[in-house]
Amino acid sequence: MTLYMNLAELLGTRIEQGLYRPGERLPSVRALSQEHGVSLSTVQQAYRQLEDNGLVEPRPKSGYFVPLSRQKPALPQVGRAAQRPVEVSQWDQVLELVGTPPYGEVLQLGRGIPDVSAPTLKPLLRSLSRLSRRQSLRELSYGCVEGEILLREQVARLALDSATRLAPEDIVITTGCHEALSAALRAICQPGDIVAVDSPSFHGVMQALKGFGLKALELPTDPLSGINLEALEMALEQWPIKAIQLTPSCNNPLGYVMPEANKHALLELAQRYDLAIIEDDIYGDLAYRYPRPRSIKSFDEDGRVLLCSSFSKTLAPGLRIGWIAPGRYLQRVLHMKYMGTGMSAQLPQLALAEFIGEGLYQPHLRRMRGQYARGREQMTAWVSQAFPAGTRVSQPQGGFMLWVELAQGFDSQRLNRLLAPHRIQVAPGSIFSAAGKYRNCLRLNFATWQQAGIEAAVRRVGATAAELLAERP
Amino acid sequence: MTLYMNLAELLGTRIEQGLYRPGERLPSVRALSQEHGVSLSTVQQAYRQLEDNGLVEPRPKSGYFVPLSRQKPALPQVGRAAQRPVEVSQWDQVLELVGTPPYGEVLQLGRGIPDVSAPTLKPLLRSLSRLSRRQSLRELSYGCVEGEILLREQVARLALDSATRLAPEDIVITTGCHEALSAALRAICQPGDIVAVDSPSFHGVMQALKGFGLKALELPTDPLSGINLEALEMALEQWPIKAIQLTPSCNNPLGYVMPEANKHALLELAQRYDLAIIEDDIYGDLAYRYPRPRSIKSFDEDGRVLLCSSFSKTLAPGLRIGWIAPGRYLQRVLHMKYMGTGMSAQLPQLALAEFIGEGLYQPHLRRMRGQYARGREQMTAWVSQAFPAGTRVSQPQGGFMLWVELAQGFDSQRLNRLLAPHRIQVAPGSIFSAAGKYRNCLRLNFATWQQAGIEAAVRRVGATAAELLAERP
Repeated sequence: MTLYMNLAELLGTRIEQGLYRPGERLPSVRALSQEHGVSLSTVQQAYRQLEDNGLVEPRPKSGYFVPLSRQKPALPQVGRAAQRPVEVSQWDQVLELVGTPPYGEVLQLGRGIPDVSAPTLKPLLRSLSRLSRRQSLRELSYGCVEGEILLREQVARLALDSATRLAPEDIVITTGCHEALSAALRAICQPGDIVAVDSPSFHGVMQALKGFGLKALELPTDPLSGINLEALEMALEQWPIKAIQLTPSCNNPLGYVMPEANKHALLELAQRYDLAIIEDDIYGDLAYRYPRPRSIKSFDEDGRVLLCSSFSKTLAPGLRIGWIAPGRYLQRVLHMKYMGTGMSAQLPQLALAEFIGEGLYQPHLRRMRGQYARGREQMTAWVSQAFPAGTRVSQPQGGFMLWVELAQGFDSQRLNRLLAPHRIQVAPGSIFSAAGKYRNCLRLNFATWQQAGIEAAVRRVGATAAELLAERP
Repeated sequence: MTLYMNLAELLGTRIEQGLYRPGERLPSVRALSQEHGVSLSTVQQAYRQLEDNGLVEPRPKSGYFVPLSRQKPALPQVGRAAQRPVEVSQWDQVLELVGTPPYGEVLQLGRGIPDVSAPTLKPLLRSLSRLSRRQSLRELSYGCVEGEILLREQVARLALDSATRLAPEDIVITTGCHEALSAALRAICQPGDIVAVDSPSFHGVMQALKGFGLKALELPTDPLSGINLEALEMALEQWPIKAIQLTPSCNNPLGYVMPEANKHALLELAQRYDLAIIEDDIYGDLAYRYPRPRSIKSFDEDGRVLLCSSFSKTLAPGLRIGWIAPGRYLQRVLHMKYMGTGMSAQLPQLALAEFIGEGLYQPHLRRMRGQYARGREQMTAWVSQAFPAGTRVSQPQGGFMLWVELAQGFDSQRLNRLLAPHRIQVAPGSIFSAAGKYRNCLRLNFATWQQAGIEAAVRRVGATAAELLAERP
């Protein structure tokens, strides 16, 4: 980390911890320069980064302030503790979400789609276009089941950002993170097995559990620090848990980053009880702070962590290129990958390898991190203003999702039905739970918050939610 | 069918049935014109088509002859009858095949890769390239789980060629035929279930059975007409078979087309014993005769046939676009597809929809059918000349694969080891059987038979096989 990043990190932590309050003036550039013994321009760079991340607000001739919008609404409540492993339901509601194309007439405010309109994506599209015209075996034929070696080399390089040491041979390219997670589950579990999960949790994994006949044990999960390790340990004493599946860095849907100490402690628990960890890191590169958080895999010494990721959230979902580093389960995962789809498409793999190899991934990430950090501030402000009093919202540390919790008894599926005539759709909370909990919650996407119509749509959702709540006896 | 196609069909059947023998002169254009009451040019067109398919040979000023190369070697033997359902092995050998990239230094004579160098493929590449540059949600984001509607419409239209009536809503786009087959098996079976299969059979399906913990019951399969229905009925009496999986049109690896009457009878058996049929039609459009064979699905009245296909053999495997029409199992298959990979890539779906919509698929198919039909003749001739006496070969009616059977005791895995220093690889027969039968067989690919080096490689394989056989005591 450079000097200015260190300083930005320090100031950011102080703001987030509330040492400076919303509306308060921050120390001047000169004062900070003297305090930390760095140049004026270093302080200015640090402030610019904080501004990009939505943590400070410049006012002409007055200096930098903590934005008023940082007067945060309350956090969502910790999910009730798991009672027992359950079978997964909710496929119908998931199908409503994923059976609607995002380029149609309905504004999908809830789906996990990044902003794909950034100019920093153009070189990738140019690579794709150029490689498409080549009429050669390498682009048009099958590759090998492990995936294109050129891309696996680049993925191994990028993994160093999360302190994860991988060789290209440790990595298998998949058809999105979806296939990575699915292959991981199949490599480890037999029908009837129990998998512990964070809660709320990604609906794709929930449905994979359902499809394989596995049971989910939902763990109480703190909206700032992730799964409760004591609860997990109690569950491990009580149930024959085969694996734990979680999204510890920039969680979906809550957005938290699990503290490093907890990640390490989780790994120790997994060692003690000899279970596998399926780590979904798909949003990890989109942490607002740089450098990005470490992966659990980075602490792994005996190959029990299966690290799953993809370029669907950082670049474009349509590429359908993900990857898995399955540790000691490599051979099993390779078989499951072959069985599921044979090979992954060569063209996007080759284009991605070029894009990353030319050093274009990090600049794109920088841009998106800033945009999403500002989006979080803006979306939080809109929700605070437009939703009924008492609405709780998450404080994501990365990614582009906000988790919104309304009063008990609120029904987000009903909300979607009322929004249908307005051609707006949110992701109902129930699909993030095996047994359909979180009906009073919903997920909102702020990736494209700057686009026309988003603010009005969010206000419409808030107003409709208020009407729905007012209806109740 | 037009007049000339009718006539070509009639003459072709006579030649294949041996009514005209290799080297024999065929009736003159004038004689046929009078016999069938058609114009001279119609007869000439028919002869040109037969020439394209390698069934006749023009000799200047003498007329048309049956090629001498049609002196066919003996057919492979019918596989020994199944004794019982078995678990699948052979993953290591499959991995040797699919873990080697086809664009590397090894000439993969055995892998199922079509010729992707035809000029008729260029418009598809141009579409891909043009769509790649568009930076819009439709190309870059997730689609919907069923797949792009524009492509499903085109697939429904093409299905009419096999007399299969499908609506776009009956079709789910998949990541290659591999995912279609895998989702079909998962939609129908539970671990421990028995699936009846043709034998030899596609190694991808064998490995899917293995991965899902299913058992394979291999049915005796005739190299000209496919699975033995009496044997299937006996097996159905004896075992609780859940589904039958087969490739009835242009079978892989044997190349036969199951007669229509047998297809119909198989469906009746499935109705009587209430089982599902998973029909792999991936090579069906590459039948040498036009119109192509009917699908079993085309006879299906109660939705028990899951028709699986893709554009991997007809256009390019690297697109990774396949499809499934799962009949009454649509909802289960949709769930399995979501669970496996979420969505399939949008770009290749949109490019394919354009290519087919512009009427460019059929001209490409015509070209490839002719090339592969001639390839069959040439490859058969090379094998007849270069392999040890007594070698048996299949008589494919479509596709680009030849199945070669050597004397009992021959070991095609050993053959591959001896070929390794020459950088040549064949597909060993054992991967086409659940229990590793057919070690004395191998599969050869003649898609690119016109390319430099193929003939020499086939001759090298034959010579090495002869050495290997001579070694034996």
